[in-house]
Amino acid sequence: MGILVVGSVGLDDIQAPAGSRTRILGGACTYFATAASLYDRVHMVAVIGNDFPHEHLEFLGSRNIDTAGLQVMEGKTFHWSGRYGPDLDDAETLDTQLNVFADFHPAIPEAWRDLPYVFLANIDPELQLEVLEQMRAPRLTALDSMNYWMGAKRQALTRAISLVDIVLLNESEVKLFAQEGNLVAAARRLLQLGPKALVIKRGEHGAMLMTHNGDLRGDCFAVPAYPLDRVVDPTGAGDTFAAGFMGYLARCGELSIGSLRRALVHGTVVASFTVQDFGIDRLRTLTATEIEARYTGLQHLTYLAPPADVTALERPFK
Amino acid sequence: MGILVVGSVGLDDIQAPAGSRTRILGGACTYFATAASLYDRVHMVAVIGNDFPHEHLEFLGSRNIDTAGLQVMEGKTFHWSGRYGPDLDDAETLDTQLNVFADFHPAIPEAWRDLPYVFLANIDPELQLEVLEQMRAPRLTALDSMNYWMGAKRQALTRAISLVDIVLLNESEVKLFAQEGNLVAAARRLLQLGPKALVIKRGEHGAMLMTHNGDLRGDCFAVPAYPLDRVVDPTGAGDTFAAGFMGYLARCGELSIGSLRRALVHGTVVASFTVQDFGIDRLRTLTATEIEARYTGLQHLTYLAPPADVTALERPFK
Repeated sequence: MGILVVGSVGLDDIQAPAGSRTRILGGACTYFATAASLYDRVHMVAVIGNDFPHEHLEFLGSRNIDTAGLQVMEGKTFHWSGRYGPDLDDAETLDTQLNVFADFHPAIPEAWRDLPYVFLANIDPELQLEVLEQMRAPRLTALDSMNYWMGAKRQALTRAISLVDIVLLNESEVKLFAQEGNLVAAARRLLQLGPKALVIKRGEHGAMLMTHNGDLRGDCFAVPAYPLDRVVDPTGAGDTFAAGFMGYLARCGELSIGSLRRALVHGTVVASFTVQDFGIDRLRTLTATEIEARYTGLQHLTYLAPPADVTALERPFK
Repeated sequence: MGILVVGSVGLDDIQAPAGSRTRILGGACTYFATAASLYDRVHMVAVIGNDFPHEHLEFLGSRNIDTAGLQVMEGKTFHWSGRYGPDLDDAETLDTQLNVFADFHPAIPEAWRDLPYVFLANIDPELQLEVLEQMRAPRLTALDSMNYWMGAKRQALTRAISLVDIVLLNESEVKLFAQEGNLVAAARRLLQLGPKALVIKRGEHGAMLMTHNGDLRGDCFAVPAYPLDRVVDPTGAGDTFAAGFMGYLARCGELSIGSLRRALVHGTVVASFTVQDFGIDRLRTLTATEIEARYTGLQHLTYLAPPADVTALERPFK
């Protein structure tokens, strides 16, 4: 088994009501790998500059992560600086410096081209396509993206979406991509491009899953966010949601509607831990036992007497 | 059995992307009574002017509704005019004319003072207190309110909240009332005033229930909204949510944590029908069979293997 992740590794400055941090380890690939390594071995492909602190490499190496795919280039590491307002909604980006990331092309090590689980974090969809071309026969592929690429690289993104099994996007991104204000209608339109499942991340309002034709009797699942009485830093919530989701699927090895549902809950749980401290700090100490406890919590939070027939959950989704 | 509802009856003008309507039957009391009458007999206390169209009285009388508590006063009926933008979020109020509603004081007919279920729709909290004083020993009381009263009549509203069993509010209203930006913390603060349960309406993002001390392992329940691929008019969604909620509790007769959860799902379902046509139009034809079908749909939508122990659901909540 094993998971390949391709995306950004960066050094972030974050300002939030609870405090601020400077040059902390960040980037979608980092968040994903750190969290997914709680489930299965993760193989990172990304680029860093020669200013990248050695302690961060040591940290990643101390997890169940293979960093042999990290390209080290002459120059500075990708840098993002953002600020959250009192309601902790979308971050305001103060500065983005692509640095070595501007010339990045993912080179998948030969031994990794047979990895079964592939996650394409939010990067230029042309690079996501380059990764897919290098993989031989992945069992499950998924991608994340963002509003910027929906304008700037719409054609490449549309192609990437049509090629992967699962698409993970925020609610507003689904509506923007489909150019449709109703979420259900937008989600159906996106599924028509080819992916087998769409995961809609809704932040503090939870997440939704849609498969097949998006029929409301069997093809949809919704889970609330894990209720938190304090949020510190939402950065990386989406990436670690993807990590819990893909990590669970890789560990469980089953590609059924039921396993997708459980994966959505794992994504929800892992993201709920991430936002309780700055950057990846909460993930450094997070344990499988803690994840299981919140999973049980969500079972209680959502429990309603089961419908008469739940056999549809055993269906494969791809 | 039977449900008492006190609130506004009005004639509304509504503009929405799907069209507009003029002088249609509206008001929180109307929406609630029309929907709750699918569950149990409803007794309306409200005021109308002598311009109130007879057809509306005939319609209400054709349902399982007792309109003997409708006061007819010299003057015009309460009028509200509102407009929804393309995203169908909060309505922009274009005009409010209180008319006869300005001098309204609820007089509960003697024979109704023993009604077991009492719903105080969104009106001046001083009037809500007047109703509570007239009731002898209600089995279950609940109130709705809005941001306006949280400023203008904060003290009366605080007292009303402390006296009822259940408070139903929107997410933003819970935060505003508690003066706390985190929803979980805000909800706990509100529960400390005395109500046994808090229902948080989150519109397209569903609803949440919190009981007792708001402990996340047993005192909380969350349900997503029923996914709709078209919304026509959100007016009355909150009032008919309350109707499905109270209607189910009145019909089922049980005051357990489990019945509260099922009631929350009924509220969600009834509101989902309401928003699919203008005003109360969808409710005119809505049947118990249609409600059951969407209830089953929500069971499927949220199904996850049950937690090991669900006996806590049998606990009474008051």
